[in-house]
Amino acid sequence: MSLGPGAAEYLAPKAREALEAAQVVVGYQTYIDLIAPLLTHQEVVATGMRAEVQRCQSAIDRARSGQRVALVSSGDSGIYGMAGLVLELCAAQGLRLGQAKTDRDADLSLEVIPGIPALAAGAALLGAPLMHDFAVISLSDLLTPWEVIQRRVEAAAQGDFVIVLYNPKSQKRDWQLPRVVELLLRHKEPHTPVGLVRRASRAGETIVVTTLENILEQPVDMQAIIMVGNSQSFRYGPYLVTPRGYLGKYQVPEKE
Amino acid sequence: MSLGPGAAEYLAPKAREALEAAQVVVGYQTYIDLIAPLLTHQEVVATGMRAEVQRCQSAIDRARSGQRVALVSSGDSGIYGMAGLVLELCAAQGLRLGQAKTDRDADLSLEVIPGIPALAAGAALLGAPLMHDFAVISLSDLLTPWEVIQRRVEAAAQGDFVIVLYNPKSQKRDWQLPRVVELLLRHKEPHTPVGLVRRASRAGETIVVTTLENILEQPVDMQAIIMVGNSQSFRYGPYLVTPRGYLGKYQVPEKE
Repeated sequence: MSLGPGAAEYLAPKAREALEAAQVVVGYQTYIDLIAPLLTHQEVVATGMRAEVQRCQSAIDRARSGQRVALVSSGDSGIYGMAGLVLELCAAQGLRLGQAKTDRDADLSLEVIPGIPALAAGAALLGAPLMHDFAVISLSDLLTPWEVIQRRVEAAAQGDFVIVLYNPKSQKRDWQLPRVVELLLRHKEPHTPVGLVRRASRAGETIVVTTLENILEQPVDMQAIIMVGNSQSFRYGPYLVTPRGYLGKYQVPEKE
Repeated sequence: MSLGPGAAEYLAPKAREALEAAQVVVGYQTYIDLIAPLLTHQEVVATGMRAEVQRCQSAIDRARSGQRVALVSSGDSGIYGMAGLVLELCAAQGLRLGQAKTDRDADLSLEVIPGIPALAAGAALLGAPLMHDFAVISLSDLLTPWEVIQRRVEAAAQGDFVIVLYNPKSQKRDWQLPRVVELLLRHKEPHTPVGLVRRASRAGETIVVTTLENILEQPVDMQAIIMVGNSQSFRYGPYLVTPRGYLGKYQVPEKE
């Protein structure tokens, strides 16, 4: 299930109910901390950052033993979150999933509860950068070969998509973003507007609008999400806006 | 502001508060209907489907006259919603936007409130199709030249993105989806899994998982959202899953 960006005001009622009804809450410690006020009676299983497989397997095992388990992800659990890994593990173990509680042949029942993804929370703070077609790419090469990431960045630039970059940088991974900016500059203008949001709706929230040629001057870490405009995006005061075309100003992008 | 997919259980507390505090609620009639139980004291300005510019201008005019206005979009207002058009109109009119109520030099104050987008609500119902990089494309050529849409579909296919198609079809617009399927079949296998969701969380909700070669057999309309898997996506029972790579099975896609 999904927690949204972090603040309680963005936690959907459905997700809150699932947390309240859970006997066990499983998640990465940082996300568990976000919902501390709601963890009044549940057993809490908090794990470290790279213990994703262990965390999901623990949730599956407990659900199979009959407990009501809430496995939490920040943002939306279906976008670089834990929903997919749980399903992958269940598939690898040949489990039969039920969707209703009354499904007696099922090994366990599962429901994915969506939330406000980081890309939507970040876009709202930047104004309206995602009003036209966009591509979402994680720059983490822990699980994905760099060649695949690079190929996607180039395809997205060629298609003149607005480009949303997740996981642009971490403490041990610092060369990917400069390389991506270099790739993007082959297809996009240096003054293409770029937005950067860190910790949307949490303490330390940061919102910056700059340009593609200057984005590397900004402090970036694994909590940042970066949005690179398309050829029509523009800055308006503190905002980054991608027009949809309602005002008749849309033109076919010049570059191929 | 954003209503999420439709059901009250997905309306964020922040959005509910904004609706309750509003003096005027402006929106497309279908979205106004979704929140009818919350419209107890507000003036309601409901407009038809293609009256987007008029609707947003009305919201701006009322806000400038000092009223508290909630302009509603379903899903997330920043993804093919009204947030961008409002900012475009304000920019075209040279308005100075304030972010805080205390900003006395501003022509009006504006806050974009994010919500659960249709792509996240749809993905949750399908399982976990968006666990790896994805591209989001609207097939409506009312505001975007078909050449741009086609170029983006091809770029997304070449990048082996999961592809999310908004507005695949309408009553008057029926040839785009067959053409897109034809384009995609040049780059993707015919058995590539494809998910289709209509009216997520509303009456008449429909969830289908099929293949790229069979998607045109499904009834599709403007309320549908379609997700085409990448080369690693697989079906698992009723679900569509795109692996992230945690289980070590990720391979560099074969096709270029």
